[in-house]
Amino acid sequence: MRGVIIHGAKDLRIEEVTPRQLGPRDVRVRIEAGGICGSDLHYYHHGGFGTVRLKQPMALGHEIAGTVEAVGSDVAQVSRGMRVAVNPSQPCQACRYCRAGQHHQCLDMRFMGSAMRYPHVQGGFRETVEIDEAQAVPIAPTMSMAEAAMGEPLAVCLHAARQAGSLLGARVLVTGCGPIGALAVVVARLGGAVEIAATDISDYPLSLAARLGASRTINIAEDPQGLEPYAHDKGTFDVLFEASGNEAALRGALEVLRPGGIVVQLGLGRDMSLPINMIVAKELQIRGTFRFDEEFRLAVELMGKGLVDVKPLLTETVPFERATEAFELASDRGRAIKVQLAF
Amino acid sequence: MRGVIIHGAKDLRIEEVTPRQLGPRDVRVRIEAGGICGSDLHYYHHGGFGTVRLKQPMALGHEIAGTVEAVGSDVAQVSRGMRVAVNPSQPCQACRYCRAGQHHQCLDMRFMGSAMRYPHVQGGFRETVEIDEAQAVPIAPTMSMAEAAMGEPLAVCLHAARQAGSLLGARVLVTGCGPIGALAVVVARLGGAVEIAATDISDYPLSLAARLGASRTINIAEDPQGLEPYAHDKGTFDVLFEASGNEAALRGALEVLRPGGIVVQLGLGRDMSLPINMIVAKELQIRGTFRFDEEFRLAVELMGKGLVDVKPLLTETVPFERATEAFELASDRGRAIKVQLAF
Amino acid sequence: MRGVIIHGAKDLRIEEVTPRQLGPRDVRVRIEAGGICGSDLHYYHHGGFGTVRLKQPMALGHEIAGTVEAVGSDVAQVSRGMRVAVNPSQPCQACRYCRAGQHHQCLDMRFMGSAMRYPHVQGGFRETVEIDEAQAVPIAPTMSMAEAAMGEPLAVCLHAARQAGSLLGARVLVTGCGPIGALAVVVARLGGAVEIAATDISDYPLSLAARLGASRTINIAEDPQGLEPYAHDKGTFDVLFEASGNEAALRGALEVLRPGGIVVQLGLGRDMSLPINMIVAKELQIRGTFRFDEEFRLAVELMGKGLVDVKPLLTETVPFERATEAFELASDRGRAIKVQLAF
Amino acid sequence: MRGVIIHGAKDLRIEEVTPRQLGPRDVRVRIEAGGICGSDLHYYHHGGFGTVRLKQPMALGHEIAGTVEAVGSDVAQVSRGMRVAVNPSQPCQACRYCRAGQHHQCLDMRFMGSAMRYPHVQGGFRETVEIDEAQAVPIAPTMSMAEAAMGEPLAVCLHAARQAGSLLGARVLVTGCGPIGALAVVVARLGGAVEIAATDISDYPLSLAARLGASRTINIAEDPQGLEPYAHDKGTFDVLFEASGNEAALRGALEVLRPGGIVVQLGLGRDMSLPINMIVAKELQIRGTFRFDEEFRLAVELMGKGLVDVKPLLTETVPFERATEAFELASDRGRAIKVQLAF
Repeated sequence: MRGVIIHGAKDLRIEEVTPRQLGPRDVRVRIEAGGICGSDLHYYHHGGFGTVRLKQPMALGHEIAGTVEAVGSDVAQVSRGMRVAVNPSQPCQACRYCRAGQHHQCLDMRFMGSAMRYPHVQGGFRETVEIDEAQAVPIAPTMSMAEAAMGEPLAVCLHAARQAGSLLGARVLVTGCGPIGALAVVVARLGGAVEIAATDISDYPLSLAARLGASRTINIAEDPQGLEPYAHDKGTFDVLFEASGNEAALRGALEVLRPGGIVVQLGLGRDMSLPINMIVAKELQIRGTFRFDEEFRLAVELMGKGLVDVKPLLTETVPFERATEAFELASDRGRAIKVQLAF
Repeated sequence: MRGVIIHGAKDLRIEEVTPRQLGPRDVRVRIEAGGICGSDLHYYHHGGFGTVRLKQPMALGHEIAGTVEAVGSDVAQVSRGMRVAVNPSQPCQACRYCRAGQHHQCLDMRFMGSAMRYPHVQGGFRETVEIDEAQAVPIAPTMSMAEAAMGEPLAVCLHAARQAGSLLGARVLVTGCGPIGALAVVVARLGGAVEIAATDISDYPLSLAARLGASRTINIAEDPQGLEPYAHDKGTFDVLFEASGNEAALRGALEVLRPGGIVVQLGLGRDMSLPINMIVAKELQIRGTFRFDEEFRLAVELMGKGLVDVKPLLTETVPFERATEAFELASDRGRAIKVQLAF
Repeated sequence: MRGVIIHGAKDLRIEEVTPRQLGPRDVRVRIEAGGICGSDLHYYHHGGFGTVRLKQPMALGHEIAGTVEAVGSDVAQVSRGMRVAVNPSQPCQACRYCRAGQHHQCLDMRFMGSAMRYPHVQGGFRETVEIDEAQAVPIAPTMSMAEAAMGEPLAVCLHAARQAGSLLGARVLVTGCGPIGALAVVVARLGGAVEIAATDISDYPLSLAARLGASRTINIAEDPQGLEPYAHDKGTFDVLFEASGNEAALRGALEVLRPGGIVVQLGLGRDMSLPINMIVAKELQIRGTFRFDEEFRLAVELMGKGLVDVKPLLTETVPFERATEAFELASDRGRAIKVQLAF
Repeated sequence: MRGVIIHGAKDLRIEEVTPRQLGPRDVRVRIEAGGICGSDLHYYHHGGFGTVRLKQPMALGHEIAGTVEAVGSDVAQVSRGMRVAVNPSQPCQACRYCRAGQHHQCLDMRFMGSAMRYPHVQGGFRETVEIDEAQAVPIAPTMSMAEAAMGEPLAVCLHAARQAGSLLGARVLVTGCGPIGALAVVVARLGGAVEIAATDISDYPLSLAARLGASRTINIAEDPQGLEPYAHDKGTFDVLFEASGNEAALRGALEVLRPGGIVVQLGLGRDMSLPINMIVAKELQIRGTFRFDEEFRLAVELMGKGLVDVKPLLTETVPFERATEAFELASDRGRAIKVQLAF
């Protein structure tokens, strides 16, 4: 069985991997689709991010879907042949946060394809993976594997939306229209926003944002004053989904948030210098959002019922044997949004 | 100028009315569409409801739209020829609730076609009405007058949805699918509910609810156990929009609400006997909702942008001269949902 | 080892009980104080309440504290000689509500001295009880056993307060000043209420409420118009803690709640007929509250730090051998608030 | 009539001022006490802050109280001889924020002693001031003028507490124990916090914080690792009141906030560099808080009822003729917390 293994920055290899033995509550899934995420790209380009660094070879990937190939003796809800989206989170169920129902803050989380722990938790860009039964979420027959592999980033954005409170009738700004920003547009539309403006520094992702429901798109590199019409009365947006991780983007957006407006911060990156006096005077709220919990099942259900359509994001699929090419493509925002590997 | 005047139960007359003189901040609107609401029907059938009784002849109607015919000398935002939805609320802007931004709880509210005050505030089923400039909300060119006249009941349901908190991913039950229940389905869909079940005792409104986005409809008269599939695990709905005003409907729905579930009570009626021990043990919340405030402008904007489509509700239009016939039709849930008068 | 065993209405016996064998995670506590709760009185007077009926003899009691006498082999946090308050809740930790952090809604809860399950879960009015380690909460050296046994009802009221949102600066009404109503006064004071009015139909509990921090007390039997000064402007209380379970008390209180006011319903009893039109028009919220979760530890901590003083409630202590006498005393609101048994 | 007039940095003069003529809704107050605030000190030391600069001589002061000396012809609620706290805010009552009940975000606010507008709004450090009737809040006979002049900063902290949600049972950290930080301790205690830790870089304000209810005080200059005991499990504080305006203080505090913890940012100052990745991963929320609205009346009521005691802060009073000396004293955190002028 082969996998996509990162050995260090710019060193991605297709290698033979030995499958883990199947425990009684385990499920083996033959992976069919795997999406490349921003954190995968960080490992590929930089060998990690912040204090999280690669210390051993690791299979990448945590946006995956496939078909159940085998199940352990105690597995009850999942059976052979089922088509499933794979939830990459495996919380400990015992720490104070798990007991309080905040599993995504688990003190001993095992998250696929992450170097936060050592030994690292191996990722899902493999021909087969072994997971706990609870991680396998059956999908509707109408859903493709490519859509199912979007369950993870969609869950991230649903969780983000929950930080904002109700979006019904809200005026929403999205800064940064990569896969996460684009899905933030989708979720803002789902939640009943009356207006969605989106900014980026490249036209390609903005054209996608428009297709997904943005009522206005602004190339902030070409039109630095593009948010000016929203600045009157101290600002007019209720909610900002900040998906760029860029200080200038966040600072510019704060100017056009109304008093009491909410920033949901999705984008990661370096420390940012923030205008505390404006945050105080306008009583802005900056709220971090991290991964997801039961939003994973919700994401799969919403797609299965046709209430959310992520297909416009699925423009590029590359055989996993050409993973390096796929990672390079995924790194070029002018050409691609979400790139998936096919297994 | 003629209007539809109620003199007492079952005594509706088309009569000549003298227009009010136009004040400096007033606007005269030539009415083109007017929807019949449940409270209009209460005046028609019973001469009032609860402690609110007709004490003098009164023009009915508070769901109206038309074209501006004349404006007072100080009017700035509205001009002759504008097509507008008319907000029937005129709060005092001076009482403690107005100052706190809760205008719909105004201690001195003037609401069109309501006998709460004496002399009564005359309603909008007239060929022309004079209103304050702030009550005239311009509509998009794409909107019909009939849609514009739906701004008021849609605003009621948007306000109701705000009592529930975020509906994103929620499992929603609607009991009673008259115009308000049907619009609650619309708003639940707008707000991103993942499941919407609707009950009524008549098939016609349920078929409309299905068209508007209900994922399941139940004729609770024919299938009294129809909610049983939702009863497991103490109940599974997150939110109930109770639009029937019927005790049995509410009690049945409480059984299938999950612990911590929220009832948004829209339906009016007699006192209801409620199972306090279940409310306590399941920590249910019953939340009243009354009229609307700035949701009126939002309703008009949502329709104007095509984000909400109320056209499926608009099945019956009757010339205002045949108002009595229209009121009888509107009273028959098996034949009509929203009936509008044309002027 | 002896316990206080209910065999049926008015049939309370002191009987020999065989201790359960100590499991590896179990703790044996020598009970020293046990408070009589309203539900204990229901079993004593009526053999149960609602659909919950005694089907076998059962030790009563779930407000208990004592000293650890023995610990199982795997017990890590608790040791012999520790003085502990006993949390009577033992949730399953596996159902959907436990996993979501809502343990008090557990689908398979074991709650001491409750006939909801069959076989019944035996209560804590025994010379010794065996509990899970997690149920034993160490108390501060400054706390008496009598105070520790108040941890449970105090936790109920802290949980109730959380349903209300922030009480800082709130105007609070408490209806019914038995032990729970009295503790609601304590918690409202703790939470920073600016005004606390309390009603009852007996003077004795009202005098206690005044000592505990009520700014005004009203004997509603003698002065049925006593809430009139709070009725202006549609009503002026922000929050009602309804601890009487009495329909007239609740209906009277709804009149003096401000628009948007919140009822936290603690009192149990028969179904109540409620004025739906007022609930709708004033947008009142009725919120059930049930038992507690981690508020138990908080209650013990607050008393241990001297931030809450429940000692004024502790007026009556009776040796457990005279349990019937104690239960009769606890049933007479004119003479006693909280009655505890000494072991 | 004389006032304390700032002409520029370090140029404070006692000068004769001409009283404004009394309008029909105006009230003239003979000022007796006036507290020096951090913003007064900014004008004194730097001639302004951020983009707000002195452009003309201005009376300082917005924490004032005194006795009504004369009232205009239409004044109804206030009469001659009344002792009042003066609310320094005069919102326009017409802009979108005033209409929505968010008066403190008024687009045309007149706030005493502020150079934000030009001509500047003159402050209250004068022997007499003329204010709108609505700004005069009568005080209890038990309250001193010095306490009444604390109404404004107490209102700031009550408003801040509302940004945090309920504090009942919360673990609270306060960074910076000047007057605002000290009052944040008072408010956290009022709101029922179970634990209050306070940090500063000077011992004097910490000793005051301890007197006001802090359960632990840490001189973070002498003991930079003093917050270490709170860092386990990703951090343990629920709420931070950041009152220092210091980047290092905020960054250090973020380390010991639990996941989902809330920062209420009170302190002003320069832009701060913040660790976005930690804010995201721990889902922290940074919430600005600005001035107050109806919390001013609440502050006066809480002091009048003896529910809040600010007297420990009132250590220094200086005759207004020696204002420069008072401002120097107020600038030395090692010697003084709140310094008031006597008139």
